[in-house]
Formats: sequence, C-alpha cells, structure tokens
Amino acid sequence: MKILWVFAHPERRSLNGSLMEAGLAELAERGHDVRVSDLYAMGWKPVVDAADFPGAGAGAGTGTDACSAEGDRLVVGEAQERGYRERRLSPDVLAEQEKIDWADAIVLHFPLWWFGPPAILKGWLDRVLVQGFAFGLKDDQGRTRRYGDGGLVGKRALIVTSVGAREASFGPRGIHGHVDEVLFPLLHGTFWYTGAAALPPFVVYGADRADAKAAADAAARLRARLAELPTQRPIAYRYENSADYDGELVLRPDLEPGRTGLGVHRVDDSAAPAPAPAAAEAGAPGAAE
Amino acid sequence: MKILWVFAHPERRSLNGSLMEAGLAELAERGHDVRVSDLYAMGWKPVVDAADFPGAGAGAGTGTDACSAEGDRLVVGEAQERGYRERRLSPDVLAEQEKIDWADAIVLHFPLWWFGPPAILKGWLDRVLVQGFAFGLKDDQGRTRRYGDGGLVGKRALIVTSVGAREASFGPRGIHGHVDEVLFPLLHGTFWYTGAAALPPFVVYGADRADAKAAADAAARLRARLAELPTQRPIAYRYENSADYDGELVLRPDLEPGRTGLGVHRVDDSAAPAPAPAAAEAGAPGAAE
Repeated sequence: MKILWVFAHPERRSLNGSLMEAGLAELAERGHDVRVSDLYAMGWKPVVDAADFPGAGAGAGTGTDACSAEGDRLVVGEAQERGYRERRLSPDVLAEQEKIDWADAIVLHFPLWWFGPPAILKGWLDRVLVQGFAFGLKDDQGRTRRYGDGGLVGKRALIVTSVGAREASFGPRGIHGHVDEVLFPLLHGTFWYTGAAALPPFVVYGADRADAKAAADAAARLRARLAELPTQRPIAYRYENSADYDGELVLRPDLEPGRTGLGVHRVDDSAAPAPAPAAAEAGAPGAAE
Repeated sequence: MKILWVFAHPERRSLNGSLMEAGLAELAERGHDVRVSDLYAMGWKPVVDAADFPGAGAGAGTGTDACSAEGDRLVVGEAQERGYRERRLSPDVLAEQEKIDWADAIVLHFPLWWFGPPAILKGWLDRVLVQGFAFGLKDDQGRTRRYGDGGLVGKRALIVTSVGAREASFGPRGIHGHVDEVLFPLLHGTFWYTGAAALPPFVVYGADRADAKAAADAAARLRARLAELPTQRPIAYRYENSADYDGELVLRPDLEPGRTGLGVHRVDDSAAPAPAPAAAEAGAPGAAE
C-alpha cells in the first residue's frame, strides 16, 4: 500500500515524534511504501493568500467570496479551482496534491490543539484540497460527487492524535464531547466529503503525563492499528448520492426518526462498531457500509 | 462595551469584508469601543514554533509533548505558560492578549473552510490562548477553572461566518451537521472552555451565490444581531464545576439519561432557545443559565 504520512508537530523529540517513528517502522516492516510530509520541517506555509496563485490577476471572477482575480480582487475558491485546472498553483501545493494522488491512504498526525488540528495542518487542508481536485467534481449523471465520493475516493484516511485529557472525558458523555464528534469536521467534513473512507481515529489520552512506559504502550497500540490500516472497517457515514437525504440535503424523516445530532449521519450508529476486516476492501467507498 | 473584532479573510473587497464594515458601523453607532485585529492585514504568523519564546532555551521542561525548552527541546504547553508568566512571549502574541484582556466581547469573523476557521485564525487561537492566560487557572478551592470559568470569564464571544451551502443542509438533520455542533470545537471547546459565554453563531448561508441584495440582507441581519450583543442569551452549556459531571468528567447518568452526542452538554437543549434578554447580564457566566 502507498501511504502519505502528514506530521504536524514542532518537535520530533516528543511523544508524537516517537509515535511517528514507531508507526513508520511498522509500515516499513509490512512492506508499504511511505512518504512523509513533516510540515514543520518543510516550513509549510499555512496561509491561503494571493501568492498561492502565481500569474493570476487577469482572470475574471464572478463569485463573491470564495480567491480568484477580479482585477486584483481575490476570490479564493475560484482562484484555487482555476489554478488547479491550469496547473498554476504554487509548487508546494502541487507537490502535496501529487503525493495525495499517489497515496492509497493518508495519515494526519498531530497533537489536538483547541479541539482541532494545529494551524500548520489546517493550512495544509486549506491550500491543498482545492476545488476541482478534492471536491466540486460531477459524476456521469451530473450529480456533485461529495460525501462518499469525490477527488479522494478509493483512499483511506486516518487521524493519529494526542490529548492531555483522560479517555472517559472524551467518551460518548464526556465533558469534552465524544472524540468522534469533536473530530467530525475532519472525519466527515474533510475525509468523507472528498470521498475518502474515514477510519476510526487513533487517540493517545493523557499525553501530557505520559512516561516512558505509557509512550511505549501508545507506540505498541499504534503499531497494532497500522497493521489493520488496509482492512479496518471505516466509519459508516451516509452517502450524499443515496436515498438517505432529500433534495435539501436533509436526512429523510423515516431514518433515525426524531433524532438530531451528528450521530444521525452514521449508519447503525447505535450498534457496536465491531471491526469486520472481511467486509472491507482496500479503500473502496462501498467498504464503509 | 469594549469589543475586539478578529477578522480572518484575505480580501476586504468581499462579502465578508462588507459584512465587517456594516458590523463596525453598527457598533460605532451604538457607542461601543471597538478594536480590530485584521489578521491578513497584520501578516499574522499562525504557526507555534520556537520563535514564539524569545530567550527560551535554558529552562527545564518536564512535560513530554505539550513547547518548553529542555535543553533546546520544545514542549509547547510549558513554553507558552512560562513565556506568559515571565512576559517573554513574542510581542505580537502579547499584543493580542492585551486586547483580549481589554475586551468585554470578542467577535471571530471568518469564512468557514473545511468546517472550521482558516489557518490564520486557528493559529491566532493556538498562539494567543496560552495556558496561564486563558486556561489552566485554579479557583479558591483548588479546582481547575474551565468550562464556564477561566481566563476569559465575564466576556462574551460571537462567531460570524459564511458558508456556501444552504441553511437546511446545516440544520439539525442537515448533511453537513448542525452548525452549532460543527462549531463545537470553537463554541464549547474554546469559548466556554476558557470561561467566555458563547453566543449563538451568526451564519450567512449561500455565500458563494450572494448577489448585492443578499449581501445587503446579510448585513442588515448582522446589524440586528450586533444590537443584541450585550444582552443576547448565550448557549446554555453546562459548567464543569457543578454537579453535572462526575469525577471522570462524564455527565451523570440521571442527566439526559441514555442520550449521547454533543447536545447533552447543553442544558435544556431540546427546548426552543428563546432569547431572554432580561436574564442575561453583560457576559457574566451565570447568564448562560
């Protein structure tokens, strides 16, 4: 399998640094091909701005808020889509898109800061996953390819993260919110949105207090999870282009009747999510059901 | 009222730019004092790195993953806390902390990218809201001041954002997830976590297709919302230091029995959130109930 590992931590001599080393060793031992984007080491630029669109400035944009050039006015979504189409995005962005195209699976590895990815990683998503590449594509029937389909269809995606808190406080009724729902913007809104199969996140709890023993345990758990990377059952989110949603993209009333909340967008959310490796085929979106 | 308006959009000549102009005009007309942090215009550095801690390098850190200097090893949480305590954080961070201290209310204004704030704003949170300033404080009884208490207690916080999608698709059963839950990492995990009262977010839908009429309507709606800024009832999240959570920070079984999901962390979440201005006192955390 070809795996892109995106690492967003400022210090390699850290718990997360050692976790990545263990993870990369496991993947190598299993014969996978791995490429690493170590965003801090690369000096990754996180901010979307006009410099992302070299040579832009003469195009005619019509959108109101999304960066293209209307004169010199930046309309982000349009500038990104045109830049992608015309191969005029900045070289650092094009290089990351090429890595994603190459990969069968993507690992996003970061410490959880303010319940989301550090800015450097958020900026990787903002700049790399542009319209026309990751989303905004149409299928044969003219339907938007999104949520279960899109530019990243056929790929698997895994979050590896660390938090200071204990596991119970990130559980289904824990004060921080259930970790699967706190990570919904990434799992559902980014991975699944672009067609990638979202695997259950790998979380290290109590990271602030981890001693050598805890770090070794976490590394062993990560190795075990990565062993299942090609086969683990993804989170069973619902497909947009299915009978589950109506024309307004609202869940049909007969499904999860009376319920609201992020959990309604998973099939069989109340059932125990037992791993069923046999049901999963390497990254095919159908494997999510 | 003293209001800090943090703006995170690369183009002032945009729907969001015009919204901010309308908003600032409304606040001025009402006699409020306003300061603006226009992050793109400021060239805000979003990445937490060793440059945030000038003069560090000799301190002894004990944490494993959080940037202080152990030798030259960066342990983020510790380096931030020590830097704050010793007034040795970089000047751009200190300036933003001073603005937050000054403000009675904070507005975070951004286009929603990948269901969260643009990297430049995420990096404002990552770098400015450090331990010892925004969180990690203790009360008289030695309890951690968090979720309804903390460094930002007494302040109100409002998200102003825009999305391309239609409103129904961000509703309680909409495919993107209910906007209040998609924004949970900010509303609950950042505002409420640091003690600030989280106001219901102001969202402009269909932003990609907004014509002049739609932009004017959005500006009028925003003005009306800002008129209520000092009095609007905040989201009624639960307090950490209350009887609602057990020692593991799990919601007690008699509350919302059998339910899970982010909604359980709101009091009376199922009831219609009718505005009750009389019940709200300028930013006092008690106003949240």
